[in-house]
Amino acid sequence: MKFAVLGTGAVGGFYGSKLQQAGYEMHFLLHQDFEYVREYGLTVISKDGDFALPKVNAYAAVEQMPPCDVVLVALKTTQNHLLPQLLAAVLKPEGVVVMLQNGLGIEETAAQIVGAERVLGGLCFLCANKTAPGQILHLDQGRLTLGEFQKPGVSPRLTYLAAIFQNAGVPVVCAENLQTARWQKLLWNMPFNGLSVVLNATTAQLMTQSRPLVETLMQEVLTLAEATGYPLPTTALSAMLAATDQMLPYQTSMKLDYDARRPLELEAIYGYPLRRAQAHDQAAPQLTMLYQQLQFLNAY
Amino acid sequence: MKFAVLGTGAVGGFYGSKLQQAGYEMHFLLHQDFEYVREYGLTVISKDGDFALPKVNAYAAVEQMPPCDVVLVALKTTQNHLLPQLLAAVLKPEGVVVMLQNGLGIEETAAQIVGAERVLGGLCFLCANKTAPGQILHLDQGRLTLGEFQKPGVSPRLTYLAAIFQNAGVPVVCAENLQTARWQKLLWNMPFNGLSVVLNATTAQLMTQSRPLVETLMQEVLTLAEATGYPLPTTALSAMLAATDQMLPYQTSMKLDYDARRPLELEAIYGYPLRRAQAHDQAAPQLTMLYQQLQFLNAY
Repeated sequence: MKFAVLGTGAVGGFYGSKLQQAGYEMHFLLHQDFEYVREYGLTVISKDGDFALPKVNAYAAVEQMPPCDVVLVALKTTQNHLLPQLLAAVLKPEGVVVMLQNGLGIEETAAQIVGAERVLGGLCFLCANKTAPGQILHLDQGRLTLGEFQKPGVSPRLTYLAAIFQNAGVPVVCAENLQTARWQKLLWNMPFNGLSVVLNATTAQLMTQSRPLVETLMQEVLTLAEATGYPLPTTALSAMLAATDQMLPYQTSMKLDYDARRPLELEAIYGYPLRRAQAHDQAAPQLTMLYQQLQFLNAY
Repeated sequence: MKFAVLGTGAVGGFYGSKLQQAGYEMHFLLHQDFEYVREYGLTVISKDGDFALPKVNAYAAVEQMPPCDVVLVALKTTQNHLLPQLLAAVLKPEGVVVMLQNGLGIEETAAQIVGAERVLGGLCFLCANKTAPGQILHLDQGRLTLGEFQKPGVSPRLTYLAAIFQNAGVPVVCAENLQTARWQKLLWNMPFNGLSVVLNATTAQLMTQSRPLVETLMQEVLTLAEATGYPLPTTALSAMLAATDQMLPYQTSMKLDYDARRPLELEAIYGYPLRRAQAHDQAAPQLTMLYQQLQFLNAY
């Protein structure tokens, strides 16, 4: 059984390394770190224990990769226009795609390419950054929520995939409903990713200095989730605030992208969810404003 | 007839210099520029023609100033806690106070100190910056809107005050209703001051790159003005956009304050208007969010 990792950044590098360390056959697609990783492999500096993989299968071009049974997609969503070419080259005819990206409309993109029945999705509750070529710093958390795309419920193949990750030391939750899980994740990402960029702030600063704003933005996410047919439990907001209070001060991925002058993942995290809610006549004035502010900053 | 200028920055320095140049007896209260201005006077670099006043009556302490008939208050509103002491020292018993500050609740502050019948207000449509000690750069506009505080309408003393400014080459409009004029000014200040700080942008960049957000913020200002009893004409929004399109690219006063790490005038421009609207059960989610973002930035 062969695994491909498309996008070997913090997310792809971390989960791919955990799987390889557990003995699975991994194939990593890289871009700017290709030369380094082919030579020296991958290193994970982790709160759960550091480890190094001096030898990994590294590729600069998808055409050199073997056909794989499971393709983990951990690219930035701003690179998803590359997926038709990438998936056509690396996915076995009977293989499955697991979309490990933030936002909404993620599995839809893959489904248009390979068919909805071959797509699963995952949400990464992971505080990790790529700190140097081939080096991932794992700061906190690490849990993966996996779910089927085409129809809700926990399928045998979902259980099987979850067991693989758990065998590699990754805590996994199987979601009954992947869309609900995605909205649950957006409950965090929509307030914190955007505000961290606009206000040049860490999550801890936002929680202490701008908590009412964080809360009203979360309230709007709840109304969007409900309007689109995926209501979250009434305890979701207070649970998310409590969980964030426990987190270490953290630079969000969007903040790191912004500081490094990389394009921001605005469409997956704001544009697509807001448009889907708008189709259900649900307004979200503050999230819309945050989206517009980020579009402004992303253009400069 | 003696005039005092409390706060000789861009606004106080510009209008005070125009009056002195026209022959009026002016007395300027200064803080950090006192030594320089006492020695070298004031200079105005203006689109309408430069002029210098090598000798001005400059004071570092209000106690040294003579009692004045007209006191022009052009301090930052963040300094208004000083007004009881300042006005007690400089205002003649029969003198009047003219509040030349942005925001809402401005005349109310002065009225609590000297009584409502002795208070007038002014709105400065002036693009000017203090560029060096004693030096004001007048970039664009310059019009003053003056109005009575206690009761609407154009009083004889208002007409008289307007004639003085017009005699000094300042275009003046006498407002029938000062509160309406203040909301009219907020229609510009609430969107542009805040966004220019949060997005690190000029007005021209906001007009071209984030016009829909500017418009929805202006819409919210219109609902606030109406809810508090001072509806603006239906053409106000499009007229304000058109006027801003004609403006030169401009750093707002709040942006200049922020870049210079001075406290922002948040209460006069956001806090007071939003609370007054809230007392009328009028919400403004996007302006509230902008206020919260600015509070966050102002605290760091």
